[in-house]
Amino acid sequence: MTTKDRNHALLSTRRSADQVEVSVREVELPRPIDSDDIVVRMLAAPINPSDIGSMLGPADPATAQPGGDASVLLRVPDAAEVDPATLGVARPLGLEGAGRVVAAGPAARDLLGRVVSLMGTGTFARYVRARARDSVPLPEHVPAAQGAAALINPLTVLGMVETMREEGFTALVHTAAASNLGQMLQRLCLAEGIGLVNIVRRPDQVELLRSLGADHVLNTSSPAFFDELVEALHATGATLAFDAVSGGTLAADILSAMEQAAIRGGAGFPHGPRYGTTVPKKVYSYGGLDPSPITVERRFGFTWSIGGWLVFSFLERIGPERAARLRRRAVDEIGTTFASRYTRTVPLSAVTDPETLRAISRRATGEKYLLDLDEGTDDDRRVR
Amino acid sequence: MTTKDRNHALLSTRRSADQVEVSVREVELPRPIDSDDIVVRMLAAPINPSDIGSMLGPADPATAQPGGDASVLLRVPDAAEVDPATLGVARPLGLEGAGRVVAAGPAARDLLGRVVSLMGTGTFARYVRARARDSVPLPEHVPAAQGAAALINPLTVLGMVETMREEGFTALVHTAAASNLGQMLQRLCLAEGIGLVNIVRRPDQVELLRSLGADHVLNTSSPAFFDELVEALHATGATLAFDAVSGGTLAADILSAMEQAAIRGGAGFPHGPRYGTTVPKKVYSYGGLDPSPITVERRFGFTWSIGGWLVFSFLERIGPERAARLRRRAVDEIGTTFASRYTRTVPLSAVTDPETLRAISRRATGEKYLLDLDEGTDDDRRVR
Repeated sequence: MTTKDRNHALLSTRRSADQVEVSVREVELPRPIDSDDIVVRMLAAPINPSDIGSMLGPADPATAQPGGDASVLLRVPDAAEVDPATLGVARPLGLEGAGRVVAAGPAARDLLGRVVSLMGTGTFARYVRARARDSVPLPEHVPAAQGAAALINPLTVLGMVETMREEGFTALVHTAAASNLGQMLQRLCLAEGIGLVNIVRRPDQVELLRSLGADHVLNTSSPAFFDELVEALHATGATLAFDAVSGGTLAADILSAMEQAAIRGGAGFPHGPRYGTTVPKKVYSYGGLDPSPITVERRFGFTWSIGGWLVFSFLERIGPERAARLRRRAVDEIGTTFASRYTRTVPLSAVTDPETLRAISRRATGEKYLLDLDEGTDDDRRVR
Repeated sequence: MTTKDRNHALLSTRRSADQVEVSVREVELPRPIDSDDIVVRMLAAPINPSDIGSMLGPADPATAQPGGDASVLLRVPDAAEVDPATLGVARPLGLEGAGRVVAAGPAARDLLGRVVSLMGTGTFARYVRARARDSVPLPEHVPAAQGAAALINPLTVLGMVETMREEGFTALVHTAAASNLGQMLQRLCLAEGIGLVNIVRRPDQVELLRSLGADHVLNTSSPAFFDELVEALHATGATLAFDAVSGGTLAADILSAMEQAAIRGGAGFPHGPRYGTTVPKKVYSYGGLDPSPITVERRFGFTWSIGGWLVFSFLERIGPERAARLRRRAVDEIGTTFASRYTRTVPLSAVTDPETLRAISRRATGEKYLLDLDEGTDDDRRVR
C-alpha cells in the first residue's frame, strides 16, 4: 500500500423513499485502528444472497437504470415512509472475501503479507479493514477465488450442525437446499452421518442433490409435498429446520409436518389435543429469499418456535477458541466439503451495469457470482 | 365413594366435519391405578379460556342449539376435512379444580379425606382421577371455590417470571393483560419489582390495571399505540413478551417495537442494517384468543423468536421439587397475589344450555365462570 493507492468500494444508498442507488465510489484508504486490526488488499469476494438483499434493499432490480458516473438507480415499489436518518447514507457492501494483508496493528503483525480469508464489513472494495480474529490465513495451494468464500457459508453450515447438537436435536431440515450452501450442508451431513431432509422447488434441484448422495429431497411443487415431508420427517426424526426462504407458509407447513410425523411416531397429547404433542419443533429463519410475511397457522400445539438465526451471533456465542477451530476446519475442507462453484466472475465496476445487476439479483439457486477485486494489479494470486 | 355413586362428566365430541357436541354424560367411576393416584370428588372448577377452546374446537358458539338429552350442538363454519380417528371420540374437559380425595393409591394415602387443588384432565366431572404430585392440599380456611383455580393461572404467572429469569430477560410484556391471569401477573411483578408492559384493547381495562398499580398499560385501539409501546419498552427494557392473543400482527408488532426501543437505547447494527440489532427479542404464545394466523412481517433483523409456551411443559422441565415449591407458593398467596374473581357460578348441567354456553364462550376479558360440581351432596365445603 503506497500513498498513491486509492480505494474504491461498492456502496448502496437510499436516495429517497422510492429510489436506491448502487455505485462504485472512491472511499478513504483504511488504516489499522485497534491492535488486532488488519488492512487487506482485496483479491476476490463472493456475492452471497444476503449481499444482494443489502444491495437492493426494498428496490426492484427489474427497474435498474444507468445512473451515470459508475452508478445504477433502482425504484422502490409501493414506497412507504423512510426513516430520514437512513436517507443519503452510503452503506458499504460485502461481508467476506480473500486478500493480502498490507497493514496490521501491533497484535496482528504476523499476518503481514499473508493472503487471508476474512469476514468483515465492506469487502466489495479494493481495501478493507478487518479484525485479525475474523480472518484465517489461506494455505499456499488455495487460490484466492476459492478462499474468498471460505467462511460465511462453511461457518453457517458448521453452525447449523453445532446448533442442532447443542439444542438436543438429531437431524435437520433445510430449505432452498440446492444452493451452494445447501450442497455444503448435504456433504457435511453425509460425512457426519446426520439425517437431512432437503426442500427444493424444481425437479433439476432434486437431481442435483441426489447426485451428491442425498437420501431425502422434496419438491414443494409436488402435489404430494406435505405427505412426502411427513414421511421424510418420520424417517429421519428431524424436528429442527433451517429456512432460507422465510416468507409465506413454508415454515408453518414444516412445523405441521413435524407434528404429524411425531404423532405417526407414537407421540400422544399428554394435555389434550388442543396442546398437541410435547415434541420440540423449531424453525430457524437464516435468510430471507421470500420477503413476504411469514404466515403461521397454528396446527401443531404449543411446543414450537420460529426465530432468526445469524452466523455472526452464533460465532460470538461460542467464543473465539471454538470459532477459530471451525474457521480452520472450513479452510481445511475448502476444496471438498465446502467447495463453491461460481457461475461468473465479474469486476467491481460491472455491478453498476444495469443488465449485470439484474442478472446477479436473480438469485437463481446454484447461480453464484464472484467479484474480481484485483483489477490493475500484478498480485501473484490473481483471480483469473 | 360408595358403589351407588355415579359419575357424570362434561364431554366434547366432534360428531362430523361440521358438527361439535358438548354434553354431560355418565362416565365410569375412576379408581386409583398407579400408586401415586388419587380419586377426587370434585367440588368446583374454573372455566379457563383454554377450556373454552377445547370445548368448542373449531365450532362457532353463536350456532349453539339444544341437542336433547343434556347436550348442545354447534356448527363448524367452513368445515374442512377431519381426521377420521377423531370423529365420535368424546373428550373430557377441564384441567384443574378442587375437591375431596375419596380414594388413593398406596403412595398417596396421606391425602385421603383432604380437600386438594389439582391439575389433571377431565376435572369438569363429579369424580376424577389425578396424580398426587399434581395436587396440593388446601388449608382449612381456603374455600373450594377459591382453591379451584389455585394452580393453572398462578403457576402460569410464576412460570412466566421464572422463564424470564432463566433466559436472562429482566422485564415482561403481557397481552390480554386485564384477564384474571393478567391481574395476577401485575400483582406478582409489583411484589418482585419486575417491569411489566400491559397490553389491553379497551379503556376500562387500562383503568382496571392502573387501579392495581400498573405503570405501563397500553391500549391497542389507541392511534399512538405503536409509539407508546416503543416508549414503554424503552423505559422497562422488556424484550420478552407472553402473548395470549397469538393471532394477527400483534406478536410481530411487539418484536418491531422491541427493536425500535433497542435502537433508541443505543443498540447498533454490528453486521449491517439488514441483520438488525443483536438484542434478543422473544414472544411466547401461551394462548390462542385470536385463532387467525400469526402474521410476521420481519422488520427487526434476525435476533428474534416466536414460539409456544405451555405451563405443563415448564413444570416438567423444572422437575418435581421446584414445581412443588411453586405450587405451595400459589396456595399460600391464593387470597392475595393469586386471587381470582368469578362473574358467575353455574352447575355442570347449565353448560349444555345454549344461552349459557354462548355467554361462557364470549371469553370477555375479566369475565370468568366457576363450575359448581357439588350438586346434590352435603359436603362441608360447598361452593355456595
